[in-house]
Amino acid sequence: MTAQPRLGFIGLGAMGRPMALNLIKAGYPMAVYARRPGAAAPLVAGGARAVANPAEVAQAADVVFTIVTASADSEQITLGAHGLIEGARAGTVVVDMATISPLTTRNIAQELEARGVEHLDAPVSGGPMGAQGATLAIMAGGKPQVFERVKPLFERLGKTILYMGDHGAGQVTKACNQLALTVTLQGVAEALMLAQHCGVDPAKVREVMLGGIAASRVLELFGKRMVERNFENGIDARLYHKDLNIVLDLAHQLGMAAPAAAVTLQQINALIGSGGGNSDFSRMIEVLEKASEP
Amino acid sequence: MTAQPRLGFIGLGAMGRPMALNLIKAGYPMAVYARRPGAAAPLVAGGARAVANPAEVAQAADVVFTIVTASADSEQITLGAHGLIEGARAGTVVVDMATISPLTTRNIAQELEARGVEHLDAPVSGGPMGAQGATLAIMAGGKPQVFERVKPLFERLGKTILYMGDHGAGQVTKACNQLALTVTLQGVAEALMLAQHCGVDPAKVREVMLGGIAASRVLELFGKRMVERNFENGIDARLYHKDLNIVLDLAHQLGMAAPAAAVTLQQINALIGSGGGNSDFSRMIEVLEKASEP
Repeated sequence: MTAQPRLGFIGLGAMGRPMALNLIKAGYPMAVYARRPGAAAPLVAGGARAVANPAEVAQAADVVFTIVTASADSEQITLGAHGLIEGARAGTVVVDMATISPLTTRNIAQELEARGVEHLDAPVSGGPMGAQGATLAIMAGGKPQVFERVKPLFERLGKTILYMGDHGAGQVTKACNQLALTVTLQGVAEALMLAQHCGVDPAKVREVMLGGIAASRVLELFGKRMVERNFENGIDARLYHKDLNIVLDLAHQLGMAAPAAAVTLQQINALIGSGGGNSDFSRMIEVLEKASEP
Repeated sequence: MTAQPRLGFIGLGAMGRPMALNLIKAGYPMAVYARRPGAAAPLVAGGARAVANPAEVAQAADVVFTIVTASADSEQITLGAHGLIEGARAGTVVVDMATISPLTTRNIAQELEARGVEHLDAPVSGGPMGAQGATLAIMAGGKPQVFERVKPLFERLGKTILYMGDHGAGQVTKACNQLALTVTLQGVAEALMLAQHCGVDPAKVREVMLGGIAASRVLELFGKRMVERNFENGIDARLYHKDLNIVLDLAHQLGMAAPAAAVTLQQINALIGSGGGNSDFSRMIEVLEKASEP
């Protein structure tokens, strides 16, 4: 790789757009492709060149970043018709920063490696704010020497850059994180709902819990929203729905029981069904509340 | 109450013994009763007077503390034959520091109040270490003026003394705490087991999670034990079994769904069944592990 690699970027949504802009600002030349017309405009205004499909992105780039929503989308833009694989050369690096199934990731990496194309999985946490401020946590899996090559680019996107192991290890780490987070939130929701049902102030109970072994970031952040009934302008519940689905699909494939995760996904299903998918995830407490209403 | 109230203490186990000793050290005269012969000896050696039954404790005391294991035990020593109620006078205060059902607590308080006897529920958290060092967190429910009278005594036992509301509010707070704690632990166990099943180092995944929104005291303390497979000399799983049973009984009585708590109790049942009741609660991860063994 030269000192100034040419970059590609696909997936210019709430996360991808500010990430790509941070790389452009750092001086890297960039080719972009957007499925939605108009999505590339802010990048082109910043100096990027829009091309017709993923294959053309790969032709124009040494390192291609992708961050699209679902496992099937990652697979399509990488291995599908006019996909990255058609334009990539031996030594091209594909870095998938979306949160997708570790099994899909391993499959993609294998297909690319058969052509000599390198792959890293590097899902992030920190949300759109972290993407804008370049303070994301990045959890990467793949070959260590490929990780080292891409690391200077990761440092333009995030603050905590972690190498977790072989292909898929980044996705596994993200899956574990989302599992613990969502189940903890379900526990916090049940605890605060219990307080409410018993006529004890949930705000006060939350304060007490924050001082002891039941304390968690979830209780701090989402618990505050639950107590205040403030479900707007947060982190959309539908994103956790997607991620916990990945977790349970993985558990299914592995033959591993994850009973609390399963129950929590059912509760998220109900939240989505009741129209709460675009509300902050703390709205999960309403599922419990509604369930016992007269 | 005089400046130097006479105290009573019943329940001289791993929690009660050091608590009673801290009160004796502070100079209060004390009458004790122990169901197990010999349990009173260390207190008598410290200057307490052993009497024949709870009624005699109440006769000899202005404020009686109780901390016995189960709801039925609290009920028995307070309202049963030769119970506190038989020896107490109008104005005597009974302070129950065990973790029992808020419904039992409210019933006990009502029976005592009919005789003019005062009652506080004041469960604690912090374990035997907190009892010895007088650093317990105490969550109290009952009349505010009774709480104020007993507060100087609580200050000999703990560091965080909280008034939560009317009779039962202390128990409700503790129940909420144990619910959030146990469900969080189940989520942490599932997350670390997922990492292990995927061949990614659980210790490393735990470190990453501690830096983000999935961080919790449970991940910090119990998660460390899970990773190190260190299940000895901790907090016995059977205690959480008892407490989560109280939570689910309460949910049952209230007609409230607590699905993640229910799943978690089933997992604790399995841990107890496999002989893990006296191991640290972090051993819950073994239930998941065993379940998918060939």
